[in-house]
Amino acid sequence: MDEITFAILGTGGIGRRALEVSQHKENLTPVAACDRRGTAIDFDGLDVDELLAATEGNIDNEVATDGGATSVDGESGVKQHGEGAGIVASAQGRPSEDPIQDVIDYGDGIDAVLLALPNYEHDFIPRTADRFLEGGYSGVMIDVLKRSRVIDMLDDRSEAFENAGITFICGAGATPGLLTGAAALAAQTFVEVTDVDIWWGVGLKSGYEDNRGTVREDIAHLPEYDIETARELSDDEIESIIDDHDGVIEFEDMEHADDVLLERAGVCDAEDVTVGGVLDVESNEKPTTTTVSVTGRTFDGETATNTFQLGDATSMEANVNGPALGYLQTGVRRNRAGEYGVFGPAELMPGF
Amino acid sequence: MDEITFAILGTGGIGRRALEVSQHKENLTPVAACDRRGTAIDFDGLDVDELLAATEGNIDNEVATDGGATSVDGESGVKQHGEGAGIVASAQGRPSEDPIQDVIDYGDGIDAVLLALPNYEHDFIPRTADRFLEGGYSGVMIDVLKRSRVIDMLDDRSEAFENAGITFICGAGATPGLLTGAAALAAQTFVEVTDVDIWWGVGLKSGYEDNRGTVREDIAHLPEYDIETARELSDDEIESIIDDHDGVIEFEDMEHADDVLLERAGVCDAEDVTVGGVLDVESNEKPTTTTVSVTGRTFDGETATNTFQLGDATSMEANVNGPALGYLQTGVRRNRAGEYGVFGPAELMPGF
Repeated sequence: MDEITFAILGTGGIGRRALEVSQHKENLTPVAACDRRGTAIDFDGLDVDELLAATEGNIDNEVATDGGATSVDGESGVKQHGEGAGIVASAQGRPSEDPIQDVIDYGDGIDAVLLALPNYEHDFIPRTADRFLEGGYSGVMIDVLKRSRVIDMLDDRSEAFENAGITFICGAGATPGLLTGAAALAAQTFVEVTDVDIWWGVGLKSGYEDNRGTVREDIAHLPEYDIETARELSDDEIESIIDDHDGVIEFEDMEHADDVLLERAGVCDAEDVTVGGVLDVESNEKPTTTTVSVTGRTFDGETATNTFQLGDATSMEANVNGPALGYLQTGVRRNRAGEYGVFGPAELMPGF
Repeated sequence: MDEITFAILGTGGIGRRALEVSQHKENLTPVAACDRRGTAIDFDGLDVDELLAATEGNIDNEVATDGGATSVDGESGVKQHGEGAGIVASAQGRPSEDPIQDVIDYGDGIDAVLLALPNYEHDFIPRTADRFLEGGYSGVMIDVLKRSRVIDMLDDRSEAFENAGITFICGAGATPGLLTGAAALAAQTFVEVTDVDIWWGVGLKSGYEDNRGTVREDIAHLPEYDIETARELSDDEIESIIDDHDGVIEFEDMEHADDVLLERAGVCDAEDVTVGGVLDVESNEKPTTTTVSVTGRTFDGETATNTFQLGDATSMEANVNGPALGYLQTGVRRNRAGEYGVFGPAELMPGF
């Protein structure tokens, strides 16, 4: 496959690891990265090692909104906000009043844009897509969003994407993403799928600092919280929630877009999909084995369950970023073939 | 997705079950079916129930070659050869001197052609593709072939397919097919895949009569046999081989196209793929659980194994024909988008 240039919006845990994983892919060249305050652009390819080293422990940990930043102070002693935070700490970074617009302005040279933005305001990703539409971008946009309700908002823009020549791939991380795709593949045995059960385990001790956004987003799935209340939590409050659970938080019936993504692919009804899991922030061992179970009826009348399991030694970062870049490659292939609109991971086989 | 018309070449075990499974798919309309001696064509949709009932136990069990039929007498007492065998036993069937040509002649109305032909002469499917090329067909062709060496022959025709507007999907059954796709998906966690191990179990007691072709093809994988010698075996000789193994035959290091299909998708080297399995023709229970194990190295330095397992209650027929029709649907989508050439199951997510 021909060379692919891509940009990363957001350089938190997911954005940084996506840059790192892309170095293992011969045909992927990261040419732009941005966070809230700065942009790095180089069409010869970003120096990923420098960028990651310069920003190590210096992640912009503010909650991603575009209606006024909600400052969240870290307690770790490294500078995580203010003018020197984030990507501008890199020699490649330049401060910017509007980093996303910088990327849009250079969109002609960018085949794909990975939105690695925690999505606290649930319309943040759709509104970011609107900006790319308005800016005349035509290429691939891909996100790793989790919330079911966002898919409908993207579908509402389907015609606009088609007219603009944008191929939007949504929910393309681990779950939704890799595990949604595995469920769709496992469904092939059956003529009717009755249940899809996605159960994940994440051990995040060493990755915790880099993945505060993900942990915050997970906490929003607890029955006592929602997106808005989780966004308002200080880091101290999050620590205290984690302590209350002895570092291990179990989630049931999460609002995860696997359900609508499988429904839109025709695999089953959204209500037949359940997603839950266990997050352990005090261990790198997974507290439970990540398993997708797809139960259905075969044409010859049997009921059975096909399963997909991730090895316990695989990290969340590996399971999010490999697929994200894999789906990005397939998105570019679709885009170059002239297929535009909204696609989910149950419809596309990711490239390798 | 819009309505899809398709034809089936071959109405042995796979072809018959593909017709049956297609009845569970709303957007798939079978419009043509043929075997060695007859053709059934109806653009309003074949009456699958009638076709299957009329030909039950009346399968043309001759070895598929186009250079003179090798007659193989069945011992079951039903008419399996001669003028009344096969599809002409159906009210919809008409005898034909050249049934494949009949399908080619009606190719304009056929979106996809499923080649459900056991591939004893290993160039039989490529040569059938040549006939469709010569006949001016432009649409999807899809096979469920197993042998690695056939993929290269199809790749040699890639440019011809592109010029003709043919999207050829090869190896799109269970293995290669569903399990190849599962391996490619499981690989997404890793930046380097070191081993893909595909291990299948098939219990085929009640399906044996319908799947003699598949059993014969499997026997060709035993160290003492090859494609040519297996083709020459009489049914009696096959029975005696099965008896020698007490009905349970184990296969190791099979020549299965999963290897080249994963290599062409960039997942791993062909030599890193091993395929084996156990066939039990005296039980419907699977003698072993069908499992795909993909071992690799993650970007963060871990080595792990992701696994995909089929439920023991799923039949070979369910695991071949669901995916075959799923890949067929995706092939038509690719074809309508103007993507032509040769594709494998590691590159496409099958539709449902």
